[in-house]
Amino acid sequence: MTSTPDPLVPVLAVVGTGLIGGSFAAALRRVGQVGRVLGVGRQPASLARARELGLIDEVADLKQAAAQADLIFLATPLGAMSEILRTLAPLLRSGTLLTDAGSTKSDVARLARDILGDRHAQFIPGHPIAGSEMTGPEAADPLLYHGRKVVLTPFEATPGMVQHRLIRIWEACGARVLLMDPAAHDQALACVSHLPHFLSAAYMGQVIGSEDADTRLNLAGTGFRDFTRIAAGSPEVWRDIFFSNRAAVLREIDSFERVLEVWRAALEDDAHPGALEALLEQSALARRFWGGRSQMP
Amino acid sequence: MTSTPDPLVPVLAVVGTGLIGGSFAAALRRVGQVGRVLGVGRQPASLARARELGLIDEVADLKQAAAQADLIFLATPLGAMSEILRTLAPLLRSGTLLTDAGSTKSDVARLARDILGDRHAQFIPGHPIAGSEMTGPEAADPLLYHGRKVVLTPFEATPGMVQHRLIRIWEACGARVLLMDPAAHDQALACVSHLPHFLSAAYMGQVIGSEDADTRLNLAGTGFRDFTRIAAGSPEVWRDIFFSNRAAVLREIDSFERVLEVWRAALEDDAHPGALEALLEQSALARRFWGGRSQMP
Repeated sequence: MTSTPDPLVPVLAVVGTGLIGGSFAAALRRVGQVGRVLGVGRQPASLARARELGLIDEVADLKQAAAQADLIFLATPLGAMSEILRTLAPLLRSGTLLTDAGSTKSDVARLARDILGDRHAQFIPGHPIAGSEMTGPEAADPLLYHGRKVVLTPFEATPGMVQHRLIRIWEACGARVLLMDPAAHDQALACVSHLPHFLSAAYMGQVIGSEDADTRLNLAGTGFRDFTRIAAGSPEVWRDIFFSNRAAVLREIDSFERVLEVWRAALEDDAHPGALEALLEQSALARRFWGGRSQMP
Repeated sequence: MTSTPDPLVPVLAVVGTGLIGGSFAAALRRVGQVGRVLGVGRQPASLARARELGLIDEVADLKQAAAQADLIFLATPLGAMSEILRTLAPLLRSGTLLTDAGSTKSDVARLARDILGDRHAQFIPGHPIAGSEMTGPEAADPLLYHGRKVVLTPFEATPGMVQHRLIRIWEACGARVLLMDPAAHDQALACVSHLPHFLSAAYMGQVIGSEDADTRLNLAGTGFRDFTRIAAGSPEVWRDIFFSNRAAVLREIDSFERVLEVWRAALEDDAHPGALEALLEQSALARRFWGGRSQMP
């Protein structure tokens, strides 16, 4: 679709044109709400592919992006954020809006304050709760954000109009926007995303460390498959997430260890064989209810 | 398909005509290797539905099954096994082969020895590694066992010809048969099936026990969905599995707690930030390799 005469984003710069950045550009293009898309990145092959696929119109560097873009969307690994903000800081025009798609928000908010100074109010940290095992521009999907939630953690200094603009942009991609405090976001995500990944990967480590690992893996079925799917995720990406949200993840690990002790005690309790079943029942009902109300495919 | 003139199973009795039993009957019927199918169960509605669906030819009781069947396939919850074997023991003819589909094997082997006495060699405990969230005769699928593994744990006294016959029957269903010692089976399954379920369900208990459970569940995505899918399983079925395989499950919980401590220490170790990444890398590679070699869809 060609853009409307007055699109929400006349010029978009996407830094990191893989699954997340490419899908954002594709989603806005699909609804005609972007004029021109600049692609910024460190991998020429990936940028060339993004251009072939029509995700971006031209390749640019951060300087060009800062000079031309109305919205700069940072979709790079967390580890690259600091350097990018340092490069952008002296170049940023007052009307440019900046946002990101990182999985943790307190650290991004801190970097934005530290590096952008007075201009941090132009940066609204964000986290689209969407993803896929697939990576790269080929995986970009204009419907990736459709029906998904996007958390924004605006600063106190963020003008209401600026915030409203980014909400409309995400809604144009089909997403539902939630506003949260960065610390609350990070603790919630530590619970529903980072801890499951940590447990799944540690469990996988246990299996391969067992003496008869091959026999065991040979008998693993669909439960194992689903429980460990996330353990196959990128070690670099997840190392960054765990370290950047370490305090919250450690609290969730502590909490899990306490819960596991309760469950373990229920399994050992011959006098009350119903105790374990009651725990299993609560969890099963909660999971079925979540599955029923969730939009998750 | 109508049966071949000399099917592997002239008369099959299926005790429990849900997903597991119904699929077994359907699989043998699909390849023409069963003559007549008797359905035994405690739920008249479920038996009637199995008959409507053509999974069974007629409804029978255990006495009729013992008098007529060449193969009796026990596909009931573990908790019902003892009573069924007690009923069958005095009725069992010498040429009848008995097998089951329970998730644990040491306890089934013990029950068979205790209850069937000299005739325990006619019982070959089995465990098809296949399943689905769905239950009941409607979920029965003639291809459920296709490409899946089936563990058999024959007794020392089991005649080779009898064992060979059951292997051929499972292979006719499209399954690959592995012979194992019951204790080795139970420890391996404690690791790759029971522990993941225990961890997933305990984790779900942690989430719903947190103060802001609703906020958290509202932010849960596809990783959460897959990691917790098994937690929705039947509390009764899983209580039976955990208690019947308790010693092995407790060993796996202990082992997991030790591994989790190592991972936790790696997350806390500022001096060696590469330690956590190395652990994540090992798990990710192992999971990707498993996914690559596995037949799992």
